[in-house]
Amino acid sequence: VERVRAAALAAGPVRMAGAARAEAEAIEREDVAASAALADHGAALLDATLPAGRVVTVMTHCNSGALAASGRGTGLGVIAALADRRPVQVIACEARPLLQGARLTVWELGRLGIEHALAVDSAAPGLIRTGQVDAVVTGFDRVAANGDVANKVGTYGLAVSARHHALPFYVVAPTSTVDPATASGAAIPIEERERSEISWRFAAYNPAFDVTPADLVTAIVTEAGVHRAPYSSSLPTRIAAAS
Amino acid sequence: VERVRAAALAAGPVRMAGAARAEAEAIEREDVAASAALADHGAALLDATLPAGRVVTVMTHCNSGALAASGRGTGLGVIAALADRRPVQVIACEARPLLQGARLTVWELGRLGIEHALAVDSAAPGLIRTGQVDAVVTGFDRVAANGDVANKVGTYGLAVSARHHALPFYVVAPTSTVDPATASGAAIPIEERERSEISWRFAAYNPAFDVTPADLVTAIVTEAGVHRAPYSSSLPTRIAAAS
Repeated sequence: VERVRAAALAAGPVRMAGAARAEAEAIEREDVAASAALADHGAALLDATLPAGRVVTVMTHCNSGALAASGRGTGLGVIAALADRRPVQVIACEARPLLQGARLTVWELGRLGIEHALAVDSAAPGLIRTGQVDAVVTGFDRVAANGDVANKVGTYGLAVSARHHALPFYVVAPTSTVDPATASGAAIPIEERERSEISWRFAAYNPAFDVTPADLVTAIVTEAGVHRAPYSSSLPTRIAAAS
Repeated sequence: VERVRAAALAAGPVRMAGAARAEAEAIEREDVAASAALADHGAALLDATLPAGRVVTVMTHCNSGALAASGRGTGLGVIAALADRRPVQVIACEARPLLQGARLTVWELGRLGIEHALAVDSAAPGLIRTGQVDAVVTGFDRVAANGDVANKVGTYGLAVSARHHALPFYVVAPTSTVDPATASGAAIPIEERERSEISWRFAAYNPAFDVTPADLVTAIVTEAGVHRAPYSSSLPTRIAAAS
């Protein structure tokens, strides 16, 4: 919005509408290019680190595909790019309460022709424990300067289980979601949604997001590459990436 | 069933029906007494180990109350007995896919007059991380001789999160669920339920239970007391308890 407004104001009153539209289209092109680049970075990372010579299983949460981001998406874009390289199957978690995994991600996986199964969110740790998952890959909504990651509620539990079983936990998003002005996850407000989404009759906790501390994140993938701890120095900002 | 059959056969053909009924009623009385005893053991344990001087919050999963067991139940029986001693609030997880937490446990908590809130299963780890939970207490369906615990799917994820945040994770059931003939959780078959419970259109993993290894279980509570690792020597069997 800031970019579009600045371009419009700089163009003056006569050319304002065209300039705003041109800037918006430039942002769209950049975002499509970013999705393609981060998918390549993530697929190369997974291909290099997952066991060779067999079908690998990637678990994902919520939706981070073409319905959520440009191109084939962020987390799901990485999975799709990996499937271009080698056989992959995906376990998609439902993502209660709004079931974006069950409603969106499995639909996208079907369109992509990637073998997949749906699981209730709370089955994920048991599936990890019994060796049915090779890596966890999700998108993210926002990352703080120190690498703490905010994403759909449930992401944190997957990160804890992944760590407990020494599985890689990768999060994927464009650098536009890196927020250098937010020092850590403690400063990220967590939206508390209407309790009516899960119950009309009873009190309910209904946080939309949770925060995964940086120390549980194996790597953060953006269009600028694969970033590892310490994230305060490795994470690019949009400004740095563009300059 | 074995006890009722043995009592009936021992009574002979004329008194068979009455003997079967008397044995069944004896089992019921024993189970009610077991529920009362395990609730007292668990409440004393929680009261002694949770922070004094403030309301404590216990998280539970699925239903382990009066609708699932005798008396006020097992896990929920402990919580009810704790609420008799001090102020308690409860976070009940939904327990997808059949939502026994959302449908049964919150109803029971309302009847018991215990303050409570419902949360989607995958919100639990984030609530634990942000300090909103003091202990996790659940029932269990079966425990192996080594202390590995099978319970409603999602229990394992709570155990992993509890360990990650150094919270106590207590499981509660009568000694009739201790299975000395099963060496470990690896020998407990996990029921895979109909995928139609979570999706009509897509492939799905739908395990009904998961197994929590004994090393994540802070204590197992039965009517015989509070049992701690190593469970292979501390767990009572029904036979030992009755003798």
